[in-house]
Amino acid sequence: MIVGRGRPVYEGVAIGRIYVHMKNQVLTDRKCSDIEKEMERFRTAKEKAAEELSALYEKTAAEIGEEQAAIIEVQSLFLDDLDYIEGIEAMIKSGSEAAFSVHEIGDAQASAFAALDDDYMKARATDIRDISDRLVRILTGADQGFRMDEPGIIVAEDLTPSETVSLDKDKILAFVTRQGSSNSHTAILARVMNIPSLVLTDIDIDQSLNGRTMIVDGFTGNYYIDPDEKTLTEMTAKKKSAGEYKAGLEKYRGIESVSRTGRKVKLFANIGSPSDLKYVIDGDAEGIGLLRSEFLYLGRNDFPSEDELFEAYKSVLEAMGGKKVVIRTLDIGADKKVDYFCLAPEENPALGYRGIRICLTEKDIFRTQLRAIYRASAFGTAAIMFPMIISVKEVQEIKEYCSFIEKELHDEGIATGPVELGIMIETPAAAMISDMLASEVDFFSVGTNDLTQYTLAIDRQNEKLDAFYDAHHPAIMRFLEMIASNAHSKGIWAGICGELAGDLSLTDEFLKMGYDELSVAPSRILELRKNVINSEV
Amino acid sequence: MIVGRGRPVYEGVAIGRIYVHMKNQVLTDRKCSDIEKEMERFRTAKEKAAEELSALYEKTAAEIGEEQAAIIEVQSLFLDDLDYIEGIEAMIKSGSEAAFSVHEIGDAQASAFAALDDDYMKARATDIRDISDRLVRILTGADQGFRMDEPGIIVAEDLTPSETVSLDKDKILAFVTRQGSSNSHTAILARVMNIPSLVLTDIDIDQSLNGRTMIVDGFTGNYYIDPDEKTLTEMTAKKKSAGEYKAGLEKYRGIESVSRTGRKVKLFANIGSPSDLKYVIDGDAEGIGLLRSEFLYLGRNDFPSEDELFEAYKSVLEAMGGKKVVIRTLDIGADKKVDYFCLAPEENPALGYRGIRICLTEKDIFRTQLRAIYRASAFGTAAIMFPMIISVKEVQEIKEYCSFIEKELHDEGIATGPVELGIMIETPAAAMISDMLASEVDFFSVGTNDLTQYTLAIDRQNEKLDAFYDAHHPAIMRFLEMIASNAHSKGIWAGICGELAGDLSLTDEFLKMGYDELSVAPSRILELRKNVINSEV
Repeated sequence: MIVGRGRPVYEGVAIGRIYVHMKNQVLTDRKCSDIEKEMERFRTAKEKAAEELSALYEKTAAEIGEEQAAIIEVQSLFLDDLDYIEGIEAMIKSGSEAAFSVHEIGDAQASAFAALDDDYMKARATDIRDISDRLVRILTGADQGFRMDEPGIIVAEDLTPSETVSLDKDKILAFVTRQGSSNSHTAILARVMNIPSLVLTDIDIDQSLNGRTMIVDGFTGNYYIDPDEKTLTEMTAKKKSAGEYKAGLEKYRGIESVSRTGRKVKLFANIGSPSDLKYVIDGDAEGIGLLRSEFLYLGRNDFPSEDELFEAYKSVLEAMGGKKVVIRTLDIGADKKVDYFCLAPEENPALGYRGIRICLTEKDIFRTQLRAIYRASAFGTAAIMFPMIISVKEVQEIKEYCSFIEKELHDEGIATGPVELGIMIETPAAAMISDMLASEVDFFSVGTNDLTQYTLAIDRQNEKLDAFYDAHHPAIMRFLEMIASNAHSKGIWAGICGELAGDLSLTDEFLKMGYDELSVAPSRILELRKNVINSEV
Repeated sequence: MIVGRGRPVYEGVAIGRIYVHMKNQVLTDRKCSDIEKEMERFRTAKEKAAEELSALYEKTAAEIGEEQAAIIEVQSLFLDDLDYIEGIEAMIKSGSEAAFSVHEIGDAQASAFAALDDDYMKARATDIRDISDRLVRILTGADQGFRMDEPGIIVAEDLTPSETVSLDKDKILAFVTRQGSSNSHTAILARVMNIPSLVLTDIDIDQSLNGRTMIVDGFTGNYYIDPDEKTLTEMTAKKKSAGEYKAGLEKYRGIESVSRTGRKVKLFANIGSPSDLKYVIDGDAEGIGLLRSEFLYLGRNDFPSEDELFEAYKSVLEAMGGKKVVIRTLDIGADKKVDYFCLAPEENPALGYRGIRICLTEKDIFRTQLRAIYRASAFGTAAIMFPMIISVKEVQEIKEYCSFIEKELHDEGIATGPVELGIMIETPAAAMISDMLASEVDFFSVGTNDLTQYTLAIDRQNEKLDAFYDAHHPAIMRFLEMIASNAHSKGIWAGICGELAGDLSLTDEFLKMGYDELSVAPSRILELRKNVINSEV
């Protein structure tokens, strides 16, 4: 039995088989001795890639739409492209390993496409890179973990947002990563999905872990590989009792969130994409307080069309059947990078070109989003929320632009519903002038993760600063009080959608401050409601 | 005549010859045809390097001390090291160019030293890199700009802090860089040195510029290379009139800074090293509000000793003859990196392991500094200021440690003077809890550069965000008011030492808020005093 530790990011116990998620290895030009065998390996890999792409095409066409699927078809064309295939074969014949040859030729041809003066051809560079990555993955065996035939535990160095997009979420019992942090993408995903997970573990990752039995204890941060009988029995009991505690929360389903003294607060859910809707229903959310838009932009080769965005937003609004859905406009940049945005590297991306700054600078991107949201607003109760606001001027510019979009749609004969406009309060600047900002909008939603990071000048992903970090820092509590008070004195509602909203030790404080809404991971709602209902505040 | 533009960072007009400052080029393995000639070039370069090091040894021993000079002697030993020299010669004989051979062998040997399990041997890796860099510079001619025989204008891509350490500051008439920002190191240096300078210029940099005549207009941001007669006449007149305006400020020398209604404020200077003392005297500063400690750590191979630090601090305190000198402890990290600190790369260095966070984690570094400052405090009026504070807990820990150091010195029979302890208020967290912090310290000094960067969540070095940046943002003005008011209600004094302190459009505001001290680039003081004396506030 191997016993190790990590930092738990969501409680619970998981028991299952390990699936190792490896990153592509760094390839070096190792020579291979048997050239014919290497050529055969390459031919087999090519066939396998074609099969995978064909399956992915069907899945995408069915779940997302033909337009997005067409991109996959373009990729498969490269498997028959003579320049590409013969280039690789020539390199293998000269003695290089297949994976290295694919990588080198793919890179050279992608650069050639990227240099062309034609947008369509330029975009093909990404296709070549994708198909090359796929071939390399097949050749190096680095993707073996991803045929999840049965539910299992994913073990990885770390997972980026685009890596998690393609995971089969129904089959994931737990995440265990070596890197990450309490607020990393994997941690947030674990909370949404309601599965025990550990980050910053000491686990040695290699393919030999695949298929072995693992126990993840999300309460203590311990994990066990190849558990002995005693541990297995104990942890099975712990899993059962955690399940019973959860079952006990069921009595809080379907009732209002009101404290003993009559303070009401709405408990909404934060979600990352329409595929999270099932967790919203499971969790009994009273609405959606944060629908992130990034999922629509990640894991693809080009900007989504207005229709794609519209369909995605509409599906969420319809599913919520009239309950409020707060859609946040794109918050790309910082730790979320997307190739086709062509964002330059920055010295300090968290203090950089991100969120509303991109939308106000590149109005085409903003326009497509706003048109899609306004069109979708006819199908439910929509609100729009803008991230990374620091000034009144920005908000006024946004409001003017929203009016323009709305009028444009009406002129085209397209219906829109009433839409509340609000802002994230997640910079110290916005908190300090929240009295001025409150006169401009319909609501505030405090993003405590970023607000804390900027206020304390501590990157929340940087482990080295854990000793200095204080999630309950008095500056944050004062900001929270100031923001709610400024909102109410101007007659608008205020919510919290950062991680702090789900911190049960602060529920009383938030009720006292008068917050109207707390938006948390869907899996947190019943427990939070229990806390509210039992509060004496 | 070539005419171009940049962003002016200090006004004034400079006319002089260009000295191009080139970075080391990226070296590729170009083969050389005449091996004997290349060997001869290498031998000549070796002799030249030995001469340079010998001159540098003399200069360092005279100006800084024998201990620091000894490091240079170690470097020169490598010029006779057989492993090193024969390795390079073997590579040249096999057909590689001399510069590339030096770079490769230097790199390989430095890595070998760095891997050794002995601190002394490890440190030699930096020596090999330094001597290799010097040889490469000599071989590629990239250092030709730095024999400044007469005063001139430095043209460069950008200048890092360690690059400017070795410049002969008496001979610099202006800086003109392609990169940088209004708050970059070069810009700050220009203001301290009181010389017109441009950053973000469109200048094409190559060696052919060397020696040509250039005019830099720090008022408009224009520059002229090979100016025609008319431009030269006009700009000479402009230079004269700027000189006259400056002469007109002389009547404000040596008098108190008091507004017409009797509000008094002390005008202090920000300086980067003891070598800036002459600007402090020229500028008529009433004290030093910010003595940075980074200069003692930059441009060297190992930590400075306690004695070196002591001598540097003592020299400033003695030169100021009893006037207050506020010494800031080391604020390394963020954009100021030093190799021998072995700081890991960070995703967001501005939100990272820097300033007091390093000192509180690596107490040895802190201890050496504090001992040196306390020892120096017997020779003048010293105050210590700690950067990047976010919590009361940090301040209490610092105070305890200072008492411990003071007691330790007294036990050793070493005298110390009275020392005020203060903190930088440069994080939103510190501003928000400045009432609590005021009970713990003797003074506040607001670092407006960082405070603004964190409050607006905008990296001040990132040009892409210029449209969103607002130095006069109402959140900053409210923070400034809050900080002064919290300081005074607890009976401590408050100053401002960021760039905003010298913003003449805000002098009235700062007087109204009751700031006790404004600390600015020495060259700004007379003009600021004129503003205070003529203020009706």
